[in-house]
Amino acid sequence: MAVNLPPPDPASLLPVPGVDLGVAMAGVRKANRKDLLVMRFGPHTRVAGVFTQNRFCAAPVILARKHLKNDVQALVVNTGNANAGTGKRGLEDAMRVCEALASHLGCEAQQILPFSTGVIMEPLPVERIVAGVPHALLHKDDWLSAAEAIMTTDTVPKAYSRKVRLSGGQAVVTGIAKGAGMIRPDMATLLAFIATDARLSSRNLQSVLERVAKRTFNCVTVDGDTSTNDSLILAATGEGPRARSRRDLLKLEVAIGDVARHLAQAIVRDGEGATKFVTIDVERGRRVEECRQVAYAIAHSPLVKTAFFASDPNLGRILAAIGNSGVAGLDTTKIELYIDAVRVAIAGARDPAYREEDAIAAMKKPEFRIRVLLHRGMASATVWTCDFSFDYVKINAEYRT
Amino acid sequence: MAVNLPPPDPASLLPVPGVDLGVAMAGVRKANRKDLLVMRFGPHTRVAGVFTQNRFCAAPVILARKHLKNDVQALVVNTGNANAGTGKRGLEDAMRVCEALASHLGCEAQQILPFSTGVIMEPLPVERIVAGVPHALLHKDDWLSAAEAIMTTDTVPKAYSRKVRLSGGQAVVTGIAKGAGMIRPDMATLLAFIATDARLSSRNLQSVLERVAKRTFNCVTVDGDTSTNDSLILAATGEGPRARSRRDLLKLEVAIGDVARHLAQAIVRDGEGATKFVTIDVERGRRVEECRQVAYAIAHSPLVKTAFFASDPNLGRILAAIGNSGVAGLDTTKIELYIDAVRVAIAGARDPAYREEDAIAAMKKPEFRIRVLLHRGMASATVWTCDFSFDYVKINAEYRT
Repeated sequence: MAVNLPPPDPASLLPVPGVDLGVAMAGVRKANRKDLLVMRFGPHTRVAGVFTQNRFCAAPVILARKHLKNDVQALVVNTGNANAGTGKRGLEDAMRVCEALASHLGCEAQQILPFSTGVIMEPLPVERIVAGVPHALLHKDDWLSAAEAIMTTDTVPKAYSRKVRLSGGQAVVTGIAKGAGMIRPDMATLLAFIATDARLSSRNLQSVLERVAKRTFNCVTVDGDTSTNDSLILAATGEGPRARSRRDLLKLEVAIGDVARHLAQAIVRDGEGATKFVTIDVERGRRVEECRQVAYAIAHSPLVKTAFFASDPNLGRILAAIGNSGVAGLDTTKIELYIDAVRVAIAGARDPAYREEDAIAAMKKPEFRIRVLLHRGMASATVWTCDFSFDYVKINAEYRT
Repeated sequence: MAVNLPPPDPASLLPVPGVDLGVAMAGVRKANRKDLLVMRFGPHTRVAGVFTQNRFCAAPVILARKHLKNDVQALVVNTGNANAGTGKRGLEDAMRVCEALASHLGCEAQQILPFSTGVIMEPLPVERIVAGVPHALLHKDDWLSAAEAIMTTDTVPKAYSRKVRLSGGQAVVTGIAKGAGMIRPDMATLLAFIATDARLSSRNLQSVLERVAKRTFNCVTVDGDTSTNDSLILAATGEGPRARSRRDLLKLEVAIGDVARHLAQAIVRDGEGATKFVTIDVERGRRVEECRQVAYAIAHSPLVKTAFFASDPNLGRILAAIGNSGVAGLDTTKIELYIDAVRVAIAGARDPAYREEDAIAAMKKPEFRIRVLLHRGMASATVWTCDFSFDYVKINAEYRT
């Protein structure tokens, strides 16, 4: 069902020197399914992270944020259960998983980052996960398998690689992500892990990650629901070339940004029930923030999203969403609206030259662009989203049962 | 499909002395369908109104707000076309409808309030409406017919009456409303008209209306989309008893509030695709505004609404929505959550005594209550909403085609 998203070609996924991967079937929620991932880092690795802004953040997120301050040795991810809304016991359970992995690796539990994704407010089946950990230490370098091990309602595993030439030699960047519903990242999105063998300082690593997250994962939405478990982790193992200069850092940031954008868009393409992939560009605003506000008002309107699904250019719904965006002093008589190259509205009303069949032709494509011009400044913003179909309701009405 | 909402019994709808009603089939969008309503007021009538906060407010809303300052003689409502996102021509079209009615009634166009509801961003078929106006001047006192004439995707006409005994005698309050989608009123909801024969000052009338709107129409949501055409009008014809004392005013406000609450809830019960009517009570907050914020975060989450539809107590989604509500400093370890009498969560985590079958039993009913205790103050707020079903997508994907 995913929109223009074939499964990744295993040959395209580059191993990252300094990263070992292992997956297991721990039976967290269902049997015979990869549901546990261990990612182990080499000795020179620096790790950065950004996490959900949901105040009900999950127990593993609380621990991961804390453990990130230490010398991180590995991370462990389970699907099937989010260990969120689980109170004090949730924290103890997440710590027990860290302890189990630490004892196998010969390090401290505080050097492990734990992650969970799945159903909220049910106790973590910690015994099954602990029993699964040794089985997740066997494989190596299989990024596709790692991507599969973190899927929940995803229909396609999400992974992407890029090479980048720095002054000291070639570095690789490889990342995986999962997520299809409860997607409206606030700092990052539900579980994405990106690794590079480049060498850079912790401070540079964190600032690169924050800038990249802002331009990629923080620009997508499926249903406007920010998850309790959103986490984006960037690890640099330092086994490849060092980022020596500003130019190296910039090139590396572009490469990491490419991987992050590919993964973020993959999450929308595989959004629950998605049949359309829609880019929303809001331009000529006063500030970036107000452009984002307008873009999200469009992307979150159930009426707009069902019109996308129907390929019905009921585009007045987009005007209504713009009017609801809450931007102070917005002059609606200046609004200009396009779908791909078709001008729908000018000066806040229907373009006299607009022909509905042109808009229908654009909307029938699996990918199209909505472009809004506010005509009050020079700022702009982009948001990627999907439509709202019968299958979104079906998937979410039947998720647990 | 509406939830516990039988059509109004015509005998229960009380005529309001000083109000004449007429409906016609003008063929605005479809033939053989009541789509035009004229409501004419007696000479002593005072009229108050509250309107949408959507910045893309429709042409008739702009005129109605302006004409409200004059001595209002009548209002005219068409369905099938919202005359929104129609620019300057939309204003001229709305004015032409006012002029047509004014010429029949022998008054000024500025004494007419125009209202439109239906598809956005299409030109108003003003000739057909003007031709229909004389036919809408023939009937009297048929409130049920009036309610039918303003329906769009509504499946049930919405009308309600109450008597109230004031010191000077008995007054009546009768109201009608329409709306099923694009419902998240900000000052009022899409087209509701309430009339009473009581006599009170314009100033009292407006302040009664604003307080009532806040407690009724501004507490409902279907899909979080605030319409471009929301209008709530309260007319007092002054042909009945006068509201002399504070006590009279209070009794009248309660009666008007009863009518408004009935109509507001009727809109949610008949929400597009609704199969459940859900009351969300948020209590023990610091301020009313933050309680409303939490209640709307729950009521607008597509994941929560699809869980309502499935009768699936996947109630962690409610915790996630609370965490996303944006209330500053919210301590999630204090949150308590009930569905009807079943305590689901305590201290931010699942109640150890919670049994899922109890929650399922509650959610299978067509009406239930979600109760959230924030435990940080004494304020509370209530929001009424419905679930999110296959039919919501179906109705909105097929609305125009």
